[in-house]
Amino acid sequence: MYKVKVYITLRESVLDPQGTAVKSSLHSMSYDTVSDVRIGKYMELTIEKNNQDIDALVKEMCERLLANTVIEDYSYEIEEVVSL
Amino acid sequence: MYKVKVYITLRESVLDPQGTAVKSSLHSMSYDTVSDVRIGKYMELTIEKNNQDIDALVKEMCERLLANTVIEDYSYEIEEVVSL
Repeated sequence: MYKVKVYITLRESVLDPQGTAVKSSLHSMSYDTVSDVRIGKYMELTIEKNNQDIDALVKEMCERLLANTVIEDYSYEIEEVVSL
Repeated sequence: MYKVKVYITLRESVLDPQGTAVKSSLHSMSYDTVSDVRIGKYMELTIEKNNQDIDALVKEMCERLLANTVIEDYSYEIEEVVSL
């Protein structure tokens, strides 16, 4: 079994209104040292092991569904979990 | 300067309709080995260095604004970036 962590973030060139809103909220709560906030998605997938290449599988899922590759970047970490 | 990565996830006991929806979409695209999907938020904060304890500062921001601690868990990683 695999535990996969997927991180999806807006590309640098894309405006992040959500991040801007959180930053101004933090400033209004006097956290003035916060100079930038970028907000994205974090996904935890549990995938059963079979003969497929797990890396290619996760990359394909990101490209086809999990990330909008026009405006988003993605990265992922794969951890194999050995069930006792 | 600090680069802080914040991961916010729904507690295990909380239903994750978004994750369920993504899982069924993946299944309809024949990714049947995916047995669970949990979706959360991923934030990247840039924080200027001053005399405050950065760990306490980030924890406080998570508790007060970034995470809804009634239904969400949070974790974070702090990396100091030395500007040349």
